[in-house]
Amino acid sequence: MSKKLKVVTIGGGSSYTPELVEGFIKRYHEFPINELWLVDIEEGRHKLEIVGALAKRMVKAAGIDCQVYLTLDRREALKDADFVTTQLRVGLLDARILDERIPLSHGLIGQETNGAGGIFKALRTIPVILNIVDEMKELCPNAWLINFTNPSGMITEAVLRYGNWNKVVGLCNIPVNAVYEEAAILDEDPSDLFFQFAGINHLHWHTVFDKKGVDRTDELIKKMYGSGETNSIVANIKDNRLIFEQVENLHMVPCPYHNYYYYTDKMLAEELEDFKNNGTRGEKVKGIEAELYELYKDPDLNDKPKQLEKRGGARYSDAACETITSIYNDKRTTMAVSTRNNGTITDLPDDCAVEVTCTLTGKGPVPYHFGSFKPQERGLLQLMKSMEELTIEAAVTGDRGTLLQAFMMNPLITSGDVAKQVMEELLEAHKKYLPNFFQ
Amino acid sequence: MSKKLKVVTIGGGSSYTPELVEGFIKRYHEFPINELWLVDIEEGRHKLEIVGALAKRMVKAAGIDCQVYLTLDRREALKDADFVTTQLRVGLLDARILDERIPLSHGLIGQETNGAGGIFKALRTIPVILNIVDEMKELCPNAWLINFTNPSGMITEAVLRYGNWNKVVGLCNIPVNAVYEEAAILDEDPSDLFFQFAGINHLHWHTVFDKKGVDRTDELIKKMYGSGETNSIVANIKDNRLIFEQVENLHMVPCPYHNYYYYTDKMLAEELEDFKNNGTRGEKVKGIEAELYELYKDPDLNDKPKQLEKRGGARYSDAACETITSIYNDKRTTMAVSTRNNGTITDLPDDCAVEVTCTLTGKGPVPYHFGSFKPQERGLLQLMKSMEELTIEAAVTGDRGTLLQAFMMNPLITSGDVAKQVMEELLEAHKKYLPNFFQ
Amino acid sequence: MSKKLKVVTIGGGSSYTPELVEGFIKRYHEFPINELWLVDIEEGRHKLEIVGALAKRMVKAAGIDCQVYLTLDRREALKDADFVTTQLRVGLLDARILDERIPLSHGLIGQETNGAGGIFKALRTIPVILNIVDEMKELCPNAWLINFTNPSGMITEAVLRYGNWNKVVGLCNIPVNAVYEEAAILDEDPSDLFFQFAGINHLHWHTVFDKKGVDRTDELIKKMYGSGETNSIVANIKDNRLIFEQVENLHMVPCPYHNYYYYTDKMLAEELEDFKNNGTRGEKVKGIEAELYELYKDPDLNDKPKQLEKRGGARYSDAACETITSIYNDKRTTMAVSTRNNGTITDLPDDCAVEVTCTLTGKGPVPYHFGSFKPQERGLLQLMKSMEELTIEAAVTGDRGTLLQAFMMNPLITSGDVAKQVMEELLEAHKKYLPNFFQ
Amino acid sequence: MSKKLKVVTIGGGSSYTPELVEGFIKRYHEFPINELWLVDIEEGRHKLEIVGALAKRMVKAAGIDCQVYLTLDRREALKDADFVTTQLRVGLLDARILDERIPLSHGLIGQETNGAGGIFKALRTIPVILNIVDEMKELCPNAWLINFTNPSGMITEAVLRYGNWNKVVGLCNIPVNAVYEEAAILDEDPSDLFFQFAGINHLHWHTVFDKKGVDRTDELIKKMYGSGETNSIVANIKDNRLIFEQVENLHMVPCPYHNYYYYTDKMLAEELEDFKNNGTRGEKVKGIEAELYELYKDPDLNDKPKQLEKRGGARYSDAACETITSIYNDKRTTMAVSTRNNGTITDLPDDCAVEVTCTLTGKGPVPYHFGSFKPQERGLLQLMKSMEELTIEAAVTGDRGTLLQAFMMNPLITSGDVAKQVMEELLEAHKKYLPNFFQ
Repeated sequence: MSKKLKVVTIGGGSSYTPELVEGFIKRYHEFPINELWLVDIEEGRHKLEIVGALAKRMVKAAGIDCQVYLTLDRREALKDADFVTTQLRVGLLDARILDERIPLSHGLIGQETNGAGGIFKALRTIPVILNIVDEMKELCPNAWLINFTNPSGMITEAVLRYGNWNKVVGLCNIPVNAVYEEAAILDEDPSDLFFQFAGINHLHWHTVFDKKGVDRTDELIKKMYGSGETNSIVANIKDNRLIFEQVENLHMVPCPYHNYYYYTDKMLAEELEDFKNNGTRGEKVKGIEAELYELYKDPDLNDKPKQLEKRGGARYSDAACETITSIYNDKRTTMAVSTRNNGTITDLPDDCAVEVTCTLTGKGPVPYHFGSFKPQERGLLQLMKSMEELTIEAAVTGDRGTLLQAFMMNPLITSGDVAKQVMEELLEAHKKYLPNFFQ
Repeated sequence: MSKKLKVVTIGGGSSYTPELVEGFIKRYHEFPINELWLVDIEEGRHKLEIVGALAKRMVKAAGIDCQVYLTLDRREALKDADFVTTQLRVGLLDARILDERIPLSHGLIGQETNGAGGIFKALRTIPVILNIVDEMKELCPNAWLINFTNPSGMITEAVLRYGNWNKVVGLCNIPVNAVYEEAAILDEDPSDLFFQFAGINHLHWHTVFDKKGVDRTDELIKKMYGSGETNSIVANIKDNRLIFEQVENLHMVPCPYHNYYYYTDKMLAEELEDFKNNGTRGEKVKGIEAELYELYKDPDLNDKPKQLEKRGGARYSDAACETITSIYNDKRTTMAVSTRNNGTITDLPDDCAVEVTCTLTGKGPVPYHFGSFKPQERGLLQLMKSMEELTIEAAVTGDRGTLLQAFMMNPLITSGDVAKQVMEELLEAHKKYLPNFFQ
Repeated sequence: MSKKLKVVTIGGGSSYTPELVEGFIKRYHEFPINELWLVDIEEGRHKLEIVGALAKRMVKAAGIDCQVYLTLDRREALKDADFVTTQLRVGLLDARILDERIPLSHGLIGQETNGAGGIFKALRTIPVILNIVDEMKELCPNAWLINFTNPSGMITEAVLRYGNWNKVVGLCNIPVNAVYEEAAILDEDPSDLFFQFAGINHLHWHTVFDKKGVDRTDELIKKMYGSGETNSIVANIKDNRLIFEQVENLHMVPCPYHNYYYYTDKMLAEELEDFKNNGTRGEKVKGIEAELYELYKDPDLNDKPKQLEKRGGARYSDAACETITSIYNDKRTTMAVSTRNNGTITDLPDDCAVEVTCTLTGKGPVPYHFGSFKPQERGLLQLMKSMEELTIEAAVTGDRGTLLQAFMMNPLITSGDVAKQVMEELLEAHKKYLPNFFQ
Repeated sequence: MSKKLKVVTIGGGSSYTPELVEGFIKRYHEFPINELWLVDIEEGRHKLEIVGALAKRMVKAAGIDCQVYLTLDRREALKDADFVTTQLRVGLLDARILDERIPLSHGLIGQETNGAGGIFKALRTIPVILNIVDEMKELCPNAWLINFTNPSGMITEAVLRYGNWNKVVGLCNIPVNAVYEEAAILDEDPSDLFFQFAGINHLHWHTVFDKKGVDRTDELIKKMYGSGETNSIVANIKDNRLIFEQVENLHMVPCPYHNYYYYTDKMLAEELEDFKNNGTRGEKVKGIEAELYELYKDPDLNDKPKQLEKRGGARYSDAACETITSIYNDKRTTMAVSTRNNGTITDLPDDCAVEVTCTLTGKGPVPYHFGSFKPQERGLLQLMKSMEELTIEAAVTGDRGTLLQAFMMNPLITSGDVAKQVMEELLEAHKKYLPNFFQ
C-alpha cells in the first residue's frame, strides 16, 4: 500500500509527548508510522517547539523512517490522517488551577477529573472535541480518534452521542496499571490472568481469573486490603484508604478513585490541609512541567527522560500506542477502554460510554460482555452515569438548569446553596471557554 | 355472604388507631366491617387497653354493627382475617431514640426512616413482618396485608421478595397529602387532576395534569418554589429548602424527603442544633404520646381527638381505609402505593418495590405504566434502590458485610470509618431485636 | 369557553358514518359537539353526499345544536379541529379486492388486515396518514387523532414513530366486543370485571378478574372452548377453530385473529374454497355497501338503519365516541387501545405501538402496566411486531428489500419464491398508491 | 501437577469417536491427556467394543502416553474427570427414524434437529443429560461438560436453567465450517477475519470483518448468493435455496438452517419426495454406519478412515478438542459456542442459551457483546427461542399442554389439529424414553 501511515497528536506540545514518541518507536516494526503531526494552539507554540525538537531527535536517534511535523494549523494536520490522538487541555494549567481552587475555597473536593472541577473540565473540552470531530468528518473520515483527554469517559460519550462519530476509543492508564501491579501482587505474569473491567472511566471494578479458570479476586483483595501495610505495595493506589471489610464484600477490585466516594470526608480533609499548606495540585504541576521543558531543551537529549515518570500518567503511552497498533493490525489485544455501552453493562443506558475490557480488532474495540452488577456496585455507578449525562448535555446545550442538576447529582459536591454558588463562580471564571453558556 | 368481614390491626395499641377506627366508621356503608381485632405485644398491653377502650366507645357511638377485640395472641387474631394492617414499632420509641441519637452523636443525620436510623428500623422490622407473613400463609391465606410500618417501601419489598407474598400494599401518607395540598395551590378539585407518582417510598416525583390534559407541573413548581414565601403554603413541605432553580429543571415535583438528599448539609446542621437543644424527635414524640394516651383514657371521649393531628401522619387512616375499601369493592380508586415494580419503572429491577400511582382493583393495585426517568431523577433513585436492596438482604441474612455496603451506599451516611463505627454501635444497641446478626 | 367543539371525520362518506353520528348524538350531554365535518375525496363525493344528507337528518331529528359540514377540502376541515377521526380506505374497495384476490390466487391467505393484504393496506395508507399528520401540525396542533383505519396498530405506530405525533389513539372493536360478550358468558356485568388486554392490534390476549379479585380467565376459557358447542355462543369468534387443549395452557384468552396463526391451514382451505365459490370478501362488501347507500338515500330515514349491523364493525362507533368523550372530559374510561409501548409490554420495543388496556384521561391514554408474557404468547407476538416494523419502514422508505423481509417474516405468507412473486404482483397492482416505491 | 488429565466421552461407541481421538492426538503437545474413557450403554456395547479397539490402536500408533478405557459404568468413568463430552443418542437411530417418519407421514418436515423431530429429540435427551449433570455434581464437580448432542442449544439451556450447572459449553460444527468455507470464498486466511456470530443453535447470523476493519459481509453475501451458480461453492449450504434479494437486506449471513424457515414449502416438498423414494435419512445413516463399523473392525486400521467424512459432522472434533484445549490452557481461542445469554443478545431472555462468538478462557467461554438485532432477524429468533423454552419446560415437567404450545409455536409444524395428532403419535412412539410424560 503506497498510502502513508499518518498519526496526528492534538495537544502535541504536552509534556507527555516524548512517552508517546517512545511508544511509536518501540512498535515501529508492527506499526510503521510515516508521519507524526504534533498540533498545538498559539498559546502552546513555545512548548510545541521544545517538545517537537526532542521528538525529532528521538526519531532520528531511533533510525526509523518517520517524519515529525509541528503545526498550529489543525486542519492541515488532520488531512488524510489515520489516527488522531487528543491530549489537550483547554485553558491550560491555569484553568485547572481554577477548577481546583474554587471548589476547595468553598470546602469541596477540588480535583481535575472529579467533582466540580471534573465537570468544568468536561464543559470546556467537549465543544472543542466536537469541533475536531466535525473537521475529521471532512478531512479524514476513516481515521480513528484516540482520546486521552480527561475526563476521558465523558469526552468519549460526547463524541459518540452528540458527535455521531463511532470511530473513537477513550483511554485511561488506570486499568493497564492495575493489570501490571496486581499481577505482581499475585506473583503471576499479566498475560496469564484474565482481568474483566466494567464501569465507567474513573469508577470501575474488576475481577481476575487465572489460566486455570480460578477466580483470584478475593485473594487479591485480601492481599491488597487485608493488612494495614499493604497499601504501599501498589503505587497507583498508594493513598488508598479503603477498608478491607468494605471491599471484601464487593468480590470485585474497585479502582483508586473509589476513595473519593467511599472516603469523601477524609479525602476532603487531606485535600483542604494540602491546599492550605501547598496550594493546588495544578500549581505544583506547573513547576514540574517547567523543569521538564528545561530538560527537554537539552540538544543532547534524544530519549524520554526518567523524570517524566514522576509527572504521573505512567503507561499512558503504552495504552495509546498499543490501542493504535492493535486496531491497525487487528491484533486483538485485550484492554479496558471507553466505548459505547450498547448493552454490555445492562444496568446503564445503551448509548452511553462505559469502560470495559475489550478485544481491539481491526474494526475497533469489541467488548467482552459483562451483564449486570450486584447492588453493591450498581447504585453508585448509575448515580455517576446520570451525573455524566447531565454534564455532557449541559456542555452541548449551555443550559444552566441542566448543569445545576449535574452538580446536585455529584456526591462530591455538597448540594443546595453551595452547589449553586460554586457553579456560578466557575462559570464566571471559565467564561472565555464556555461560549455555549454565554451567548 | 354469611362470612364475617374481619380486619386485624397489628400494633393495635398505637396512638394512631383512633384515626383508623374513624376511617372504618366513615366507610361502613361500603365496607361493612364485622370484626376489628387490635393486636399488640406484652410491652404494649397498657396502651392497647387504653386505645382499645376508646375504639369500643367510638364504634358504639357510631352505632355500627362491629365488634372490637383486643388480644396479645396474634395467631388467634389472624385466623380467617380478610385484611391485616401493620403499624408496629419493634423496640418501641426507645429503639427510635437510639436510631436518632447514635448517628447524631457521630455527626450524621439521625432520622427514623432515612439514613442509618432508617436502615436499622428496617433491620428490626423485616424479620417480624416475615414472621407475620408466615402466619398469614397458614391462618388467612386469602387476606391482604396493608403495611404502614416505616420504612414502608423496604418492608413491602421484603414481603414480596423474601416472603413470597403478593397480596401486600405498602402505604405512606405523603402522596395523598401532596394531592390535597397541591390541588389547593392550583385552585382545583383533587378529583379533577391526574397525579402520576413514580419512585420509591420517600423518594418519588410526580407530574400533574388537569381535566383538559394540560400539564400543570411547571406551574405548580413555580407556585411552590418560585418565591421566597411560598414554602409556608404547603404544610407537608413546610421545612422545604429546595431552591426553584433546582426543581424547575426536573419538570416533576419532588417529595419532601428530597430535602435530605439535595440539602444534606443544611438539614444536618439544623438537626444537630435541635438535638443539642432539645434532644431527639423520639423523645419529643414520647411526651406527645403520653399526653394522647391521657386524653384517650377519658371515658366520655368517643371520637378521635383533635390533638392527634399534631402527632403527624395526617391522612394515613384515609389512605389505609380507602385502600381496603377499594380492594374490597373493586372500586378502582387511583392512589400511589408501594407495589412490585415488574417493569413499571424501567430504570429499576423488576422484583423490587416501587411507589407508583395505581388503580386499586379487586385483585389489588394495578400500576399505571410509568416508563423511564430523565437523568435528573434517575441516578439518585437508582442509588437509593441499591441501598434498599442491600439493607433488605442484610436484614434477612444477618450479613455484616452486606450491611456495611448499605451504609456506604447511603448518601446520608459519611462513608468509611464513621460508617463502620456507627453501624457497629447500632448493631450493639439493637442486639436484642437483631437475632439474624447475633447467632 | 366560547370556542366551538369541532370533530373532523376523514373518510366521512364511509357507510359506517351513521353509527358514528349516532354515537355523538347519544353522548351530546357530555360531549356537546358543535361542528361535525365529513371529509372525503373526489372519488367518494357521491357517497359523501348520501351519507352526509343522512347525517344531517339524524342530527336534526335528535334536536342537538350541531352543524354537519360536507367537504372535499381536507385543509378547510382540519382548521382548528379538536378531534380528527380517520376511517379511510386508500384505493376504495377495489384495492381491497386486489389485496384479497392476488394472494388467494397464489394459494395464500387473502385478507384485508392480515398477511400480504394487510401489509399492502398499510403500505397504501401510511403515506396518507403521515400527510394528514403534517396538516394537523399546521392547522390543528392541539387536536387528537383517533384512527380506526386498518391495520390500526401499524397506522398508529407509523404516526408515533415517523409522524412524531403523540396525540393519537388507535382503535379496534375487538376488545370492546370481547368485554361485552365474555361478560355475558360469565353472567356478569361488564363493569364488574377487570379485563387486561395486552399485545398488538389483532394479536392480543387478555385476562379477566371479577370484583372480588378472582381470576376468572380459566373459567372463561373452559366455557368458551371446553365443549364442541360453545363456539357458537360468541358472535365475534363464531368461526373459532381453536382447540381447548391449546388455549387452556395460555391462561389468557386469545383474540379471534389467532385462528389465522394457530389454524393457518384450515383457515386457508376455507378461504380458498369460499374464494372459488363466491369470490373475494371485498366483492361481497361492495354489494352490501350498495344496498346500504340505497337505504341511506331514503329521505325519511333519520336514524342508523338496522342493516348496518350486518356490515360488521359492531361497537366501532361506541369505542370511538367513548374515547373522544373520555379524553374530552378526563372521564378515565378503561379501554384497550393502540398506544406507544414505552415499556408497558417489556417484551416489545419501547417505541412501537401496542394494544393494551388504558385509562383514557384528559392527557390521553395512560396504560395499565402489563410486564412480560410467558413464552406461550411471547414468541408469536414478537415475530408479528418485527413484521409490523418492517412493513412500516418499507411504507416510509419504499425499500423493496425491507418489504421482502416483512413478507418473509409473516407466518401467513409462504416464504421464498412465492413471497417474492406475490409481493411484486401486489406492488404492480397498487402502483398508483405507492409513490414511495415508484420514484 | 501429579493429577491425571482425564476425559470422559459419553456415547463413546459413536461412529464419530475416531475423529475425536484424532483431535486429541493432534493436540497432545498442548493437552497431554492421560485417560480417555469411552462410556456407552448395554445396547451400544458392540459398537463401543469396535470403536474402542480402533481408538486404542490409534493412540498406540501415535505413541502418546494415554490410556483408553471402555466401560458401561458411567459413574466409574465420571469419577474425577476433567472434561466430559456428550455425543449420545437416546433411543439410537431407531428413535431418529421415528422422529423423521411420523411427521413426514403427516406432511410435516421430519428432521432430527428441527420441527417435531427436533422437539422430541430434546424431550428424550434432556432427562438423560440432567441425570449426567447430577452425577457430575457428585463425582467430578470441577469438570467441564462439552455437549455436542443435538439439539445442542436446548440441551445446553436445560443444563444451565434446570441443571444449575454453569460449566457447560454447547457445540455445533456449523460456525466453524462457515469460518473456513467463507474465508475461502473471500480468499482470505480464516485467522485474518473476525466473524461475529449471534443467535441460537441452528438459527444464527454473522458478520465478517477483515484485518483492516472493513465489513466484508455484503461482499460475502453477494459472492454466496448473487449468482445462480454459487450455491455449490459452499459444502455446508449446498442445498441452499435462499435468494439473494432476501439475504442482501439482512447484511448478515444466515446459517444453512434458515432454509427451513425461509423456504419451508420447498424444503418440505423435497423431503416428502425423498421420503417417498428413499425412506428417511435415519435409515440411510444406519446403512452408512454399518459400513463404517465394518471398516473400523479392520485390525490394521489405526487412523480415522476417510469415509467418516461422508458421515457429516465435519470439524466437530476440531471444535470439541479446540474448546477443551483452549479452556485447559486459557488459550483464548475465538469460537462460536452455546452459552448463557445474560444480556449478550439483548432481544432474548438473560437465562437462555445463545450461540455467540466467545473467547474461550480458563474460566470458560466469555462472549463478545452483541447487542440487538434488526427486525429482519429479531422476530424469527424470538419466536424460535420461545419454542425452545416451551420444549425444555415440557421435557422437565412432562406437561402435555406446554408441549402442545411448543408445537404450535414451531413454524415448521402446521398448527391446530395436525400438531396435536403428530404430538400424540410421537409421545406414544417414544413412550419408553419419556418417563416424565407417562407417570
